[in-house]
Amino acid sequence: MAVVGAGISKFGAFADKTSRDLLVEAFQSMRGSVDRGFDPREIEALYVGNFNSELFENQGHSAPVMADWLGLTPRPATRIENACASGGAALRQGILAIASGLYDLVLVGGVEKMTGLPIEQATSVLATAGDAQYEIPAGFTFPGLYAAMATAYAAQHNLPLERLQRLLAEIAIKNHENGALNENAQFGKTIAEVMEKAREKAIMNGSRPPGWESVYDFLADMRANPVIASPLRLFDCSPISDGAAVVLLAAEDRARAFSKNPIRIIGSGQASDGALHGRSSLTSIQSARAAAREAYEMAQISPRDVKLAEVHDCFTIAEAIAGEDLGFFAQGEGIRAAQEGITNRDGRLPLNTSGGLKAKGHPVGASGVGQVVEVWKQMRCEAGARQAARDIDLALTHNVGGTGQTCLVHIFER
Amino acid sequence: MAVVGAGISKFGAFADKTSRDLLVEAFQSMRGSVDRGFDPREIEALYVGNFNSELFENQGHSAPVMADWLGLTPRPATRIENACASGGAALRQGILAIASGLYDLVLVGGVEKMTGLPIEQATSVLATAGDAQYEIPAGFTFPGLYAAMATAYAAQHNLPLERLQRLLAEIAIKNHENGALNENAQFGKTIAEVMEKAREKAIMNGSRPPGWESVYDFLADMRANPVIASPLRLFDCSPISDGAAVVLLAAEDRARAFSKNPIRIIGSGQASDGALHGRSSLTSIQSARAAAREAYEMAQISPRDVKLAEVHDCFTIAEAIAGEDLGFFAQGEGIRAAQEGITNRDGRLPLNTSGGLKAKGHPVGASGVGQVVEVWKQMRCEAGARQAARDIDLALTHNVGGTGQTCLVHIFER
Repeated sequence: MAVVGAGISKFGAFADKTSRDLLVEAFQSMRGSVDRGFDPREIEALYVGNFNSELFENQGHSAPVMADWLGLTPRPATRIENACASGGAALRQGILAIASGLYDLVLVGGVEKMTGLPIEQATSVLATAGDAQYEIPAGFTFPGLYAAMATAYAAQHNLPLERLQRLLAEIAIKNHENGALNENAQFGKTIAEVMEKAREKAIMNGSRPPGWESVYDFLADMRANPVIASPLRLFDCSPISDGAAVVLLAAEDRARAFSKNPIRIIGSGQASDGALHGRSSLTSIQSARAAAREAYEMAQISPRDVKLAEVHDCFTIAEAIAGEDLGFFAQGEGIRAAQEGITNRDGRLPLNTSGGLKAKGHPVGASGVGQVVEVWKQMRCEAGARQAARDIDLALTHNVGGTGQTCLVHIFER
Repeated sequence: MAVVGAGISKFGAFADKTSRDLLVEAFQSMRGSVDRGFDPREIEALYVGNFNSELFENQGHSAPVMADWLGLTPRPATRIENACASGGAALRQGILAIASGLYDLVLVGGVEKMTGLPIEQATSVLATAGDAQYEIPAGFTFPGLYAAMATAYAAQHNLPLERLQRLLAEIAIKNHENGALNENAQFGKTIAEVMEKAREKAIMNGSRPPGWESVYDFLADMRANPVIASPLRLFDCSPISDGAAVVLLAAEDRARAFSKNPIRIIGSGQASDGALHGRSSLTSIQSARAAAREAYEMAQISPRDVKLAEVHDCFTIAEAIAGEDLGFFAQGEGIRAAQEGITNRDGRLPLNTSGGLKAKGHPVGASGVGQVVEVWKQMRCEAGARQAARDIDLALTHNVGGTGQTCLVHIFER
């Protein structure tokens, strides 16, 4: 089983683009990545990860619409929905479908068009990824749920909230630095650049220039970086985004017919969990640990072997917890990795070289597939300015739905 | 690959039941059907077909919620959405997952809770299974789309609309007769019984008793059977329903460990199509023809070999077209099959012995799985009063999404 092509649309807010436009854009970008070319009519099935086109675009039953727009009709087209892990879950179905022997060439897509609704409404749509019977009536939104996890994390590891916030800021700074080097990212600026722009704007407006001496001052400024759900502030949160990503999967024995440098998928793990209110721990996601265990066992590797990972940083705290759940760091250490430079592009274990959900953007259904696109580029040394310093011959993706009701982990080898 | 257990909830309108309650009810009913018993902890994965819990219940990400309520956490739980074919699509993913070698025992469920919304709103939710960009803004609802197909069918086969309506009525009469023998059906009465009840009510109210001499008079009465979207009338339409169904799938070599009489799945077909507005024919569903072709080829059988089928009669016209698309009848003949008694329980090819979507009810995501539950019962001679007269050693299910943007066909052998 291998990835033989990968493509992504621009992520951002596009008033004139629908889901189908975005998926076509990603598909066209993928076509150029298939080294030896291919005829789209060779594609035997489509799996599309999409979280909520019902509420975002009033469109259910989106898979055959997508197949139609990609010219794949009458091929089977199936929509997979596991909230923010829809893309990863679609990938797994594509893998299983090829492993079953039924298909040799399968297209896996992920897409979400979120910016057509006012922001408050988008937040309510996102809340449907929680538990409508228990969590949501209690007033929780997703920033609130992850804020509860952040608060628990601080308590468990004896971190004063300000110290926690400073460590979280390091994750945001790193991911914005990566995103600034990603031409498809929603946020194309480092936080330092955002700060300078804010300063210029203040001067232009004739206000007294803010006295920020560093990005830490900027991020500590309540006006520049307001609290969303304490302790999480604006720059701890991934944005509302439009975007799509696709990968083309081929059976092992067909991969070289399409690609000079296919990326093999050697591990896949998936697990579920109940909603946050019923868990024994708020500082570790059990489904991530179970999915990682399955993927590592299938791949017959250990966390130490992983050279790079794209992890599900819907909030900065989620990246810290992901590093621990995946076995990269001990409990309480995941939050320090960015500050210590371990997870930078030139560090021992680069995390989210794409910019992550945080800076690349988080079009929910697309995110899990977008992670694979980044891994594809990094492993083929095609990531340009954001190419990791180390040679990446083994990489991992980690895609979480909700607060961990679903988690998918995939492992790739070159 | 075999079905080793099957269960279904009562279908109907249940103000006090949510999706999760309904799925648990179906699961408990399934447990009793596994001849040699099993420990639910042996289930390795869950696939849930669900069309639109987002809009019906404000709940996305429903698969892990269901896994939690069934006690399956932390097993992988994946939600499959292909509108009214969500159940059939979930079944296919379960089959492929076992065929991949990853799992030996997989639970496939389907569920929908539709009656929580006012009927007009439910119709709007159903419309999201159409094309939100082309069909729905043109004013189409699903009765309207199938009415267009019925009108085209009448035109193509030179049937005056009244003649068409009479033939469609025969389909409704048959399916209500079957549903009246199904303890889980939403409509537990034959149309003759409905008529007598309406007559009694008129007498009780002191009105002049209606002069219906037969069910045909009753169905021709505009007050008793109003037009919904001409030529389709009330009794041509499946209802809005709550309900769930589950089947337990086992790998071939494990099936007899669970069941004395497993039902083998020998064919699976799936295909997609564009929306109705772009098709070359309104009287045949190309995705159904393609899915049937795939399933027949896989099973190495011909339509003639099929002894019984559950087909997707969301509207009476859909059963007529299904019979033709599946190769049971020539074009223009599918509509006569019920009148000629061919598709009755004691006919050559019983269709919808369960009552079909028409009388059993149509909780969208559950319907495709519910069809398999009926096939399971008929093939094991456990269908009680509605048991088909012939011995059923080969059966078929046909599950359509939208107006045919998706179709799934499965073939079963005893």
